[in-house]
Amino acid sequence: MKELRQITVIGLGLLGGSVALAIKSFLPNVKVIGFSHRAATRKKARQMEVANCISDNQADSVVGSDLVILATPIFTFEDIFRDIKSSLKEGTIVTDVGSTKTLPHRWAAKRLPKSVHYIGSHPIAGSEQRGVEFSRDDLFVNANCIITTKKGTNREAVSLLKGFWTKTGCRTITMTPAEHDKIYASVSHLPHITAASLLNSNSDELLKYSGKGFLDTSRVASGPSNIWVDIVMTNQKNCARGINKLIKELEKFEKVIESGDHDKLHKLLESARNKRAKLIKDKLRKKELL
Amino acid sequence: MKELRQITVIGLGLLGGSVALAIKSFLPNVKVIGFSHRAATRKKARQMEVANCISDNQADSVVGSDLVILATPIFTFEDIFRDIKSSLKEGTIVTDVGSTKTLPHRWAAKRLPKSVHYIGSHPIAGSEQRGVEFSRDDLFVNANCIITTKKGTNREAVSLLKGFWTKTGCRTITMTPAEHDKIYASVSHLPHITAASLLNSNSDELLKYSGKGFLDTSRVASGPSNIWVDIVMTNQKNCARGINKLIKELEKFEKVIESGDHDKLHKLLESARNKRAKLIKDKLRKKELL
Repeated sequence: MKELRQITVIGLGLLGGSVALAIKSFLPNVKVIGFSHRAATRKKARQMEVANCISDNQADSVVGSDLVILATPIFTFEDIFRDIKSSLKEGTIVTDVGSTKTLPHRWAAKRLPKSVHYIGSHPIAGSEQRGVEFSRDDLFVNANCIITTKKGTNREAVSLLKGFWTKTGCRTITMTPAEHDKIYASVSHLPHITAASLLNSNSDELLKYSGKGFLDTSRVASGPSNIWVDIVMTNQKNCARGINKLIKELEKFEKVIESGDHDKLHKLLESARNKRAKLIKDKLRKKELL
Repeated sequence: MKELRQITVIGLGLLGGSVALAIKSFLPNVKVIGFSHRAATRKKARQMEVANCISDNQADSVVGSDLVILATPIFTFEDIFRDIKSSLKEGTIVTDVGSTKTLPHRWAAKRLPKSVHYIGSHPIAGSEQRGVEFSRDDLFVNANCIITTKKGTNREAVSLLKGFWTKTGCRTITMTPAEHDKIYASVSHLPHITAASLLNSNSDELLKYSGKGFLDTSRVASGPSNIWVDIVMTNQKNCARGINKLIKELEKFEKVIESGDHDKLHKLLESARNKRAKLIKDKLRKKELL
């Protein structure tokens, strides 16, 4: 297989719908099939024409596809692999857009036939919104997409998958699933847990006095809870470590505040400010921010 | 005094500049005098015409004013009170736009003559940007402005000050300085410390992998460090209590994650999600969000 002619997207939420729309816009010669187990989602997806064909049969939807992309909550993957394995043709690339990668690789190794290639994908795009109605064909433009591979992952398949994400607008970065899960516990899962903790530490009555800063700081916590249960529970150790690391940083602030040491407090705040300034400069340079 | 004819704004950063511009736009019959101790700021303020008159002498700038508004870092207030006290006419209202209120009230009681009225103001508006060049006359439109009073604060002066903030576009809410500082430790100072801790807990190398969610969660930490040292150090006990409250919430997550209890994790995430949804609904209803 040298090129992708047919792609199946399983799950048509914000991400799955956007993948399908991006294929229609940026790979117009590829046939895209979308599957959702929900009738209401299929109806909306048909109205929005997110794919060439919307299927209500998961195993059938992958027949003949060169690439199958799972865009469902992570804990559904193992069942989906079991359900589709006999319908996959030889050499098919199976990937997903989930936010953790170690367990998906393990499940794929256990459940998928040796004749297909599982590779993880994690496009760093999305929002706190959910549902196919928020899908956009340009969701992946200028986003990073982490590709996860293990020793022995088929190189041709990796290069085909990287080419696919590049065409949707992503920049790809390849690493192992373990590296991925460690990094994203720190820069994504921990901020989510923190935003939720900030909300939970305040009563509704107190929150009414908050300003725009609080709304931004807590935005990610509006993301769908079922998706986030799966993310956190498939990355337990790294998330727990992240929480401990954050608590240590908070305790540094507490100590400095209680000691009344203005200079040390200034240093802690300035360190954070410089880190964010550097980060924004880097992201602007790479055109990740427009 | 039944109306304000002349107002002095001391400090012409983002907030002070915006107060001056709002006076020019919404109270066009009032003469507004701006003071900054920095020549470069005065030059920019003159170019932008943020006030009718830009002064380089703090004590002179308040002569004849009915209202004096401090828009400088909180720890400068006591010195400013000392510097301007002999130039204030009888019955002048002195206020500020600082983010903590207990110490400013204490300093005012100690330093200002009995013939003037100190009342605290805290407009919940601003951004992580700094400098007169980011000033906007509509910064206060639809914002809450907390007015802090103590037993014995002159009622006529309070009503005049509330009228002033209302004209700039604010909704005013009156409370004691102690109530204010407790509330804002929770909904503003703690989120700032948390955003800074999240940044400090990550290396620059790791941060490069972050997405837009992280940038939002950490936005407030780009605020000016000197301003925030003063905010936190004038609200030490409440901030330290806030950190402890947050650590307890983080530990709840840690425990649930380590136990692998999906239902309990879902409940914690859903509680946060519901709180934010309620908050946004409330803010939309009150037109605080446009």
